Amino acid sequence: MTDEATAFVPGHVTGFFSAHPDEDPLVAGSRGAGITLSHGVEVRIERDAGASDVTLNGEVLTVDAVDAVLDALGATDAAVTAETPLPLGAGFGVSGAMALGTAYAVNAAYDCRRTENALVAVAHRAEVEAGTGLGDVVAQARGGLPIRLEPGAPEHGRLDGVPASPRVEYLSFGSVSTEEVLSGDTRALTAAGERALADLRERPTPDRLVSLSRRFAREADLLTDHVADAIAAVRAAGGDAAMAMLGDTVFAFGGDLSAAGYDPEVCSVHAAGATLRAQGARDA
Amino acid sequence: MTDEATAFVPGHVTGFFSAHPDEDPLVAGSRGAGITLSHGVEVRIERDAGASDVTLNGEVLTVDAVDAVLDALGATDAAVTAETPLPLGAGFGVSGAMALGTAYAVNAAYDCRRTENALVAVAHRAEVEAGTGLGDVVAQARGGLPIRLEPGAPEHGRLDGVPASPRVEYLSFGSVSTEEVLSGDTRALTAAGERALADLRERPTPDRLVSLSRRFAREADLLTDHVADAIAAVRAAGGDAAMAMLGDTVFAFGGDLSAAGYDPEVCSVHAAGATLRAQGARDA
Repeated sequence: MTDEATAFVPGHVTGFFSAHPDEDPLVAGSRGAGITLSHGVEVRIERDAGASDVTLNGEVLTVDAVDAVLDALGATDAAVTAETPLPLGAGFGVSGAMALGTAYAVNAAYDCRRTENALVAVAHRAEVEAGTGLGDVVAQARGGLPIRLEPGAPEHGRLDGVPASPRVEYLSFGSVSTEEVLSGDTRALTAAGERALADLRERPTPDRLVSLSRRFAREADLLTDHVADAIAAVRAAGGDAAMAMLGDTVFAFGGDLSAAGYDPEVCSVHAAGATLRAQGARDA
Repeated sequence: MTDEATAFVPGHVTGFFSAHPDEDPLVAGSRGAGITLSHGVEVRIERDAGASDVTLNGEVLTVDAVDAVLDALGATDAAVTAETPLPLGAGFGVSGAMALGTAYAVNAAYDCRRTENALVAVAHRAEVEAGTGLGDVVAQARGGLPIRLEPGAPEHGRLDGVPASPRVEYLSFGSVSTEEVLSGDTRALTAAGERALADLRERPTPDRLVSLSRRFAREADLLTDHVADAIAAVRAAGGDAAMAMLGDTVFAFGGDLSAAGYDPEVCSVHAAGATLRAQGARDA
């Protein structure tokens, strides 16, 4: 047991998804596929800080999913300090990463004695109840190019992956409200997401993940003008790109955004899921 | 699609286990817990090499599980080149790592279009049918400190993890035959393994993983003289250590072997499971 602990959680871009609400937040979730990123969120927990205080890149803010995790683990006096190069609300799973990183780091700092699945369940429930995400947390706990075969927390859900480690490029133009899309009529979106999932399982490659994600954004009528323009430019240059769900963000593999004249952020696929930073030996 | 591909698979030390044989090799497996290591096996596949040729650290050898994976994926003309700092047959899951690394790299080099779960199933089946392991492959596909809750390939099995990333020390004195132990009467072993699993789930920490593994080796009557001596020395110095299943190998977290005067190999927990080495962008 230590007084503080730090966890790293990869960012996660969903390429396509179907929404599966349920009264039980551990059963609720999404099917779909995406990319976990080496760009992620580092979450430091300081025990017994007096009152819970959450900061992201130095700014105090309220993240409902983080508060719910602190509540669930009895750590309402923890200070939560998160740092990330990723923009919030732009489809990178930053809120899910903050919830999951909080769960891992609180478990270490408060000696909560939970397994990884139990911590993922706490964070997944918090994110679903906050309405800010359905599938980021389980994907971020896994790493790689996660395929969400069945929705829900580890006890209910089922994951697979695309076996590849391509270079990732992305460019964000701004936010799209996840709550707004998820609280609307998701029937057309879900039908398109189910089609994309079936097609990806037939041929699970990075190229196919991008082309199916591009098709999904169009079929689900979620494409923004910025992203549509960027995709057109990338395709004109012989590449392919798609939209991050849900953000005004375009992503591609290899050098496809650069080749079309953009100056994107560059990272790699993060092979591992969320991890506690190594500590001084035995009490880790 | 490329003509060659390389995968990295972490080593895996099982601390305790229960054996669950089944006629269906995808259902067969083990429950238990262990450690995936940053020391692992790098497997390179060269396509269309004429005839299948398997080498480990430069020596030609026959690994039944690798041959079975090549067969299952239609890659019987592949050259398999494996490199590892880990000893073979000493409880580090080298044969499982070779089978799983072969599956991942063949999938990339031969464009087999399998998902990660499908590749893990191919390698798990090969390892079970060869009689050389029951739970290494699924643990090595996951990374971290894997808890095998339910035996079998991804479709049947279920995994969890101890949320921690301690430093690992190990020292190998030689081999123990996995086939011999697994083909004998495993009832006492399995009862001891089930007890250890229940106790670890109550308190999933690295310290507890070591102490329960130590108890298991004694209860299952598997302790070798070398390992018993090393454990006694480590405990006399105030630390704790246990035996790798199945090898004449002792392991500990933090600096416990060093503190007892040993000169162990040192590595860390490998947060990620098996991964394909990044390739030139789009065709990865």
